Amino acid sequence: MAPETPHPVHIVGAGPGDPELLTLKAVRVLQGADVVVYDKLVSADILALIPAGATRIFAGKVARNHYMPQRDINALLVGLARSGRRVVRLKGGDPFLFGRGGEEAQALARHGLPFVVVPGITSASGCTAYAGIPLTHRGLAHGVRFVTGHTKDDGALDLNWASLADADTTLVVYMGRTNVRRIAERLIAHGLSPHTPAAAILQGTRPEQRTVLATLAALPDVIEKMNRPVPTLLVIGRVVALSETLAWFRPDDTTGTDTRSTG
Amino acid sequence: MAPETPHPVHIVGAGPGDPELLTLKAVRVLQGADVVVYDKLVSADILALIPAGATRIFAGKVARNHYMPQRDINALLVGLARSGRRVVRLKGGDPFLFGRGGEEAQALARHGLPFVVVPGITSASGCTAYAGIPLTHRGLAHGVRFVTGHTKDDGALDLNWASLADADTTLVVYMGRTNVRRIAERLIAHGLSPHTPAAAILQGTRPEQRTVLATLAALPDVIEKMNRPVPTLLVIGRVVALSETLAWFRPDDTTGTDTRSTG
Repeated sequence: MAPETPHPVHIVGAGPGDPELLTLKAVRVLQGADVVVYDKLVSADILALIPAGATRIFAGKVARNHYMPQRDINALLVGLARSGRRVVRLKGGDPFLFGRGGEEAQALARHGLPFVVVPGITSASGCTAYAGIPLTHRGLAHGVRFVTGHTKDDGALDLNWASLADADTTLVVYMGRTNVRRIAERLIAHGLSPHTPAAAILQGTRPEQRTVLATLAALPDVIEKMNRPVPTLLVIGRVVALSETLAWFRPDDTTGTDTRSTG
Repeated sequence: MAPETPHPVHIVGAGPGDPELLTLKAVRVLQGADVVVYDKLVSADILALIPAGATRIFAGKVARNHYMPQRDINALLVGLARSGRRVVRLKGGDPFLFGRGGEEAQALARHGLPFVVVPGITSASGCTAYAGIPLTHRGLAHGVRFVTGHTKDDGALDLNWASLADADTTLVVYMGRTNVRRIAERLIAHGLSPHTPAAAILQGTRPEQRTVLATLAALPDVIEKMNRPVPTLLVIGRVVALSETLAWFRPDDTTGTDTRSTG
């Protein structure tokens, strides 16, 4: 029988990869979990914090190119919460930034089930910190903008390019790898200089991190030539040039050393 | 005499206030610090983590309405790093998002001194998570934008209003309290609906958190009537309406219960 008051489902951001970027709260709720429902972007080092006796449910790819549909994840969380167990929903990055955590919270709220949201370090913040790129900087960028480069069903990426082509605002594109050519072309067509400094940060904050610096015009060629289908964050704007002097993180992997390209 | 290789200065984000939102890395470096240089936005609970024997230097207000100038903070960090001590520069939120951490890193780099940047949960992420406002949400917002409402020398706030008045993007304004009237008026003048849902989150993630919901048009009156000069984050966009059902955090303070105003 379910208890009168079920435990709140904790919707937790795991951050961009480095397990030391977990918050104290994330670690506390993970260590008390009975069930953890996790995504593909959560690293093995972080999963190692889950108690040995807890059930782990992978909500990522369930078959070749097929993911568990969001409605099924929502139903899973509702069912687990009702079973009286301590449920943690563990997501890469931050649950409320391109994480669909809001939809999961809505599903729980709709069924009168309690939940708690634990924010995580979002990729835009974690990856740029490790790459030495301040998102805002006096005289270079007075604001920042986050968009996703991901498109459903492989449709053409349709963003408000005129508004995005703003030299005073740092632009961060999540999941921007496959659409990098269209992004660069559209921004340049809408007036952003082809010489705008740009970066691709692959597997940011992890020992395998690789930072590629290029001009906006050159970035697509560089990324396509690398052909590395791993989580990639694009950063476009004057602040990117600071990485030349502020990159402090030395990844372990010798193939992960920084690449400078002005192609 | 200074050692041959000085310890890296750790430029650390303390997050928005809740001490449990510190990262594991932030706690580790704080607990090993010889000297901590901290800002006014760092809460007492977080300062309590600093070892008893460590020196604490407050880099906030040094006299009535006067703050330690940034160049003095930079020089202080350079001097401390050269002294061979383990230095932590502790900042509210995230060092690279409206935190001027980039300038401090540049000062250290210019003197050949090593540093590490530890990202923190930025206010936009922490405060909205606690207020139940997803920054992006299917069908409501496909991106987010962060700007600061702070102006130097009390000049008029000058932002790219036409670009900011975008119903499909969530707008987060850091330090937006004093300029809230101008922000609302300019956005509405540039085409954003006066009925756009808006929130002010005061002292977000702290026991004193207060969330005020209003329409964009009504927000200035509500905030001015409250007259509470505390850290305030403004959130403007359709996603704000979700707070009605997704606000889960119950602040301790009875004066801090959520206020709903449709003014």
